[in-house]
Amino acid sequence: MENMLEMGRRVLGSQPFSVLLGTELVSFGDGAAELKIPITPQMTQQHGFVHGGVISYAADNALTFAGGSALGPGVVTSEFKINYVRPARGEFLVARATVVHAGANQAVCRCDIYASDGGIERLCATAQGTIVHAN
Amino acid sequence: MENMLEMGRRVLGSQPFSVLLGTELVSFGDGAAELKIPITPQMTQQHGFVHGGVISYAADNALTFAGGSALGPGVVTSEFKINYVRPARGEFLVARATVVHAGANQAVCRCDIYASDGGIERLCATAQGTIVHAN
Amino acid sequence: MENMLEMGRRVLGSQPFSVLLGTELVSFGDGAAELKIPITPQMTQQHGFVHGGVISYAADNALTFAGGSALGPGVVTSEFKINYVRPARGEFLVARATVVHAGANQAVCRCDIYASDGGIERLCATAQGTIVHAN
Amino acid sequence: MENMLEMGRRVLGSQPFSVLLGTELVSFGDGAAELKIPITPQMTQQHGFVHGGVISYAADNALTFAGGSALGPGVVTSEFKINYVRPARGEFLVARATVVHAGANQAVCRCDIYASDGGIERLCATAQGTIVHAN
Repeated sequence: MENMLEMGRRVLGSQPFSVLLGTELVSFGDGAAELKIPITPQMTQQHGFVHGGVISYAADNALTFAGGSALGPGVVTSEFKINYVRPARGEFLVARATVVHAGANQAVCRCDIYASDGGIERLCATAQGTIVHAN
Repeated sequence: MENMLEMGRRVLGSQPFSVLLGTELVSFGDGAAELKIPITPQMTQQHGFVHGGVISYAADNALTFAGGSALGPGVVTSEFKINYVRPARGEFLVARATVVHAGANQAVCRCDIYASDGGIERLCATAQGTIVHAN
Repeated sequence: MENMLEMGRRVLGSQPFSVLLGTELVSFGDGAAELKIPITPQMTQQHGFVHGGVISYAADNALTFAGGSALGPGVVTSEFKINYVRPARGEFLVARATVVHAGANQAVCRCDIYASDGGIERLCATAQGTIVHAN
Repeated sequence: MENMLEMGRRVLGSQPFSVLLGTELVSFGDGAAELKIPITPQMTQQHGFVHGGVISYAADNALTFAGGSALGPGVVTSEFKINYVRPARGEFLVARATVVHAGANQAVCRCDIYASDGGIERLCATAQGTIVHAN
């Protein structure tokens, strides 16, 4: 029988955009999810930092997985909000999302996104959003 | 003398992530910006729609350009919020952002993101955020 | 037969907090709503401007009415985001909300909040949120 | 010498809208703030629950105090986002805000808002926002 993490990795592996970015699902279940994304030169903006769009992708996807761990499969992010707090650089991004509240139809989740540089994690953004069942 | 659109295209062309996604700056200036992104298979999620992370990238970037057209160069997105209203598919995304209010230090902007499919544009997300001068 | 505006005013009149603040429903219907709130000294913060909490109340309520005009009665605001762009003072607040997209179960709406001072309206905040059917 | 909590209470006491609502500052300092608001009939909406506008006021104000504990006096809420997760009723609201990240010019904060009913606290909303120095 497939466990949660295997199922989550299968879903992530079926997202071509996540495959393009090399995203890995580190942990998944019990209202939480952690994604890891290797930072490559092609993910940067004009100053050499990770593009905000990559960070918002990480937030969006981690929020969806966290919400899905509570609501079950077939969920999408309905909306989210993200605050960038520090330019991101280093070897990889880590996005950790948790469910704040889950009802029958939706889950409200938070996500902190860190850049890991030389073994040190620094918070670079924080997000909050709503995950719902896809129609 | 370089005009606004040429300057904006040069900035966009110096963002490796935007080059990776093939983003074009269609218009730029007077508190507004429009980006166009060709939809390719590698931008999708598991159901064949454009990944939400690509749409949030488009919103983030269009908001920054719109804000930058009012504040001047050297700006970043401080925060934004996005609501997804419809799955996106078709030939390309169009993100149109405008400044709602600009002060000395920040601009509040909105962005509508459309998917163009067979010549028909459909709204797929809408965003609102704050652009500030980078430190 | 009761028309939309009368029905909306009846709902607003049954909200004790709206009665406390003296909120009026100016217009309601076709995916839009406008609220007017007289500015009184008891609505201010320590610098004499309208308290942000009053402005967020205005946004929240106008968003709900706009969403309700599309979804029908029995709706609540699920979430919203607000940017304050200017301190508010004057005779009254005006909150104008419109539906950006309405589906079967939710409506995404925007709201601009103005302070009217000596006959001149100035934008003081802008909001975006999701209205859903109450469970 | 006036301590942080006394200073915070003096500021809160100089906000007529907070006096109108009976808001108390329970704790303040070290990047955190807690507000308590007695629930009265005049704070409700048409179904007898606390009006969302009161809850957004609580979030806005607690976020500002938390940010101010890190940035110093003279701050305002620039923007915030709130998700409502459960109707609020009971004896009082409690809004607990903490700083997620503080820089020189702004602080990003979160706030959980609970309704206390018969000695049991239930989460009714969660918020995230940006606090900045007033101009």
